[in-house]
Amino acid sequence: MKSSRLDLTTPKKNPIITLTTDFGADGIFVASMKGVILGINPKVNLIDVTHAIPSYDIEEAAFLVKSFYQDFPSCSIHIVVVDPGVGSPRKPLLIQTRHGYFVGPDNGVFTHILRSEKPKVWTIHQEKFLRVSLGQTFHGRDLFAPVAARLSRGEKPGRLGSIMKTPVMIPTKEPLLVSPKRVCGEVVYVDKFGNLITNISLSYMKTLGWEKNLQNLTVKVSGRDLGGLHQFYSESSKGKGRALINSFGDLEIFCNQGNAQKKLGLKKGASVEVWMS
Amino acid sequence: MKSSRLDLTTPKKNPIITLTTDFGADGIFVASMKGVILGINPKVNLIDVTHAIPSYDIEEAAFLVKSFYQDFPSCSIHIVVVDPGVGSPRKPLLIQTRHGYFVGPDNGVFTHILRSEKPKVWTIHQEKFLRVSLGQTFHGRDLFAPVAARLSRGEKPGRLGSIMKTPVMIPTKEPLLVSPKRVCGEVVYVDKFGNLITNISLSYMKTLGWEKNLQNLTVKVSGRDLGGLHQFYSESSKGKGRALINSFGDLEIFCNQGNAQKKLGLKKGASVEVWMS
Amino acid sequence: MKSSRLDLTTPKKNPIITLTTDFGADGIFVASMKGVILGINPKVNLIDVTHAIPSYDIEEAAFLVKSFYQDFPSCSIHIVVVDPGVGSPRKPLLIQTRHGYFVGPDNGVFTHILRSEKPKVWTIHQEKFLRVSLGQTFHGRDLFAPVAARLSRGEKPGRLGSIMKTPVMIPTKEPLLVSPKRVCGEVVYVDKFGNLITNISLSYMKTLGWEKNLQNLTVKVSGRDLGGLHQFYSESSKGKGRALINSFGDLEIFCNQGNAQKKLGLKKGASVEVWMS
Repeated sequence: MKSSRLDLTTPKKNPIITLTTDFGADGIFVASMKGVILGINPKVNLIDVTHAIPSYDIEEAAFLVKSFYQDFPSCSIHIVVVDPGVGSPRKPLLIQTRHGYFVGPDNGVFTHILRSEKPKVWTIHQEKFLRVSLGQTFHGRDLFAPVAARLSRGEKPGRLGSIMKTPVMIPTKEPLLVSPKRVCGEVVYVDKFGNLITNISLSYMKTLGWEKNLQNLTVKVSGRDLGGLHQFYSESSKGKGRALINSFGDLEIFCNQGNAQKKLGLKKGASVEVWMS
Repeated sequence: MKSSRLDLTTPKKNPIITLTTDFGADGIFVASMKGVILGINPKVNLIDVTHAIPSYDIEEAAFLVKSFYQDFPSCSIHIVVVDPGVGSPRKPLLIQTRHGYFVGPDNGVFTHILRSEKPKVWTIHQEKFLRVSLGQTFHGRDLFAPVAARLSRGEKPGRLGSIMKTPVMIPTKEPLLVSPKRVCGEVVYVDKFGNLITNISLSYMKTLGWEKNLQNLTVKVSGRDLGGLHQFYSESSKGKGRALINSFGDLEIFCNQGNAQKKLGLKKGASVEVWMS
Repeated sequence: MKSSRLDLTTPKKNPIITLTTDFGADGIFVASMKGVILGINPKVNLIDVTHAIPSYDIEEAAFLVKSFYQDFPSCSIHIVVVDPGVGSPRKPLLIQTRHGYFVGPDNGVFTHILRSEKPKVWTIHQEKFLRVSLGQTFHGRDLFAPVAARLSRGEKPGRLGSIMKTPVMIPTKEPLLVSPKRVCGEVVYVDKFGNLITNISLSYMKTLGWEKNLQNLTVKVSGRDLGGLHQFYSESSKGKGRALINSFGDLEIFCNQGNAQKKLGLKKGASVEVWMS
């Protein structure tokens, strides 16, 4: 959205590093990472995205990363650590895109970024930048934090790693056009309000040429008819399951001032259908 | 507490923006707001107040806002988003007081501020400052964040909105003087320790002329006699329900090194009586 | 790790203040502390360590403080508030070490620091620096926050307090050498992944001269044989209870991509044995 030249922005001025992990906010893991970063670059503005990703859930990490990064300035550095293979030969990555830098394990957490951003990708020189530590279980603190901090001081990605051709991608849940006017998808995330976020996006519907006729859509979840699309939550009566396109561009099932997950008894994986009449 | 002139301080130098929402800390909503703010003003110091307000609970948001804002520098900008009516014609507000700026929906979350601060109030020019977005469900990110960020750069409130006369106020739970020496109130908030915070404040008792005789007060909750006021928690024996004036100036029921909520089996709404003998 | 002269670093440039409490992240206590700090020094970079220490649990606070502080720059100021005796005559402390400053109650939360750092210790001049407040229950906001903020502006510890000789230390759980080749310890902390952290550290095993023969160690928890030490989590098969030295240098029981606490049905206090063969 900002610039299309890859090298135009630099993290150096007013540097921002975000953190997305499955470490939980209750322990000291995140603070230890921040301490290491500030030891290398005390000027960094550290932003927690979430530390509540279910333990080891690479797929959910990938989904969330896809959803938030474009809201940040294009010089931001996003550390993502959901890393069950830490210490094993899985590779550490540094990725540069038009919309920011990414640092984390090569295990699929960056799948959506790799697919949609045509990024430059490096394998981090682990032998050079891994902090001397007592154990091999915390690359968030001992490798990704120092590399992101160096990047935030203006060090070039090419000095921090070697160009890499085939980073790991995981299969993602895509919607399916089952007939010319019918799409099948599923619930891929449930937010704090109990809203059910689906894998059917506005941009997908645009590829079908549907964006001019969104008023003719009908949404069904697990066989239940939710009617057409709403514009905003309080437009519908309280307590009814309804659907809208949310502010991340995804089809979402909600319940005005209620909890759609509880109301409809659904969870991640529930099937969703969209019909164009 | 600082200045009595409304225009003396500016958010511009070392800008502070606080965030108070019902978004939860586990998702990406808060990070998305921060990304947008930093894109407009990368120098902002972002402070999370809480994101654990019960979903859609405007009343609890109003109570918490009342309690923390005076602890912040008077140039701070407080974004408050508990906003079930997002996307509807409910208005977006910008408020200037002697103790800071406030940005959020016109639905009552600022009731205590509007009542006690004699503030200036503007309706934000939504048509001008709403970010182009895929949905209409996230004014926290798409309207309140950019407006607060602009304010933090020194833009004048009068350029961001139009003066407004009658912002929404919600009814608040006030204590009742049921006889010359007896006040009835209720529990309005329970904190992390299980302390029961009541709506009977020291400032209210001062209006009754009671502040010189606080040693003669007796406190009852749901018919149970808790005795007189203590000064601090460890002054009382462990595990007993007792009362004191807490550091926000409110009458609080506590249990030394225990959990008064569990011990006494009470919750929000429980009745509290205070007797002056 | 940095300097060995106590006065070499100053918190003044790019000041960092960390916060470790049992206040919970859901209320407004932490934000109120931050507001007060920023009112005194708006340049401070505020880092939350954790606010999820179990209420009044001084022992767990002491353990966590020991674990994270060395990851921070040596000019950092660490506020620790687990303070059931707030308002009583328990003393307020300011501690200076080669690895940072510490501010909090004199109740044992700094036990490990006092033992291993040979620090300078002051009692804070409470009568001088306690903020005027409505209650005596929140020294986190009213005393420790302003003192840490002043320290971050370069004020000398000797002006903030008086030298103190015998700060409170609490008994800590130490491992026991029950025979020349057998150590008994226990689980002292459980992390977010359900990993069981023990009080048997690598540095303790070094005092026994064991560090060259770690490959000959066998670990037992509650009578169950977990085999020898692993290097990293994914080295072992999924779902089995195993042991390694973690990245804080402590013996840890884990379960690859699982939850050792649930899998083994253990909790804090469970006995752990280590055998050198």
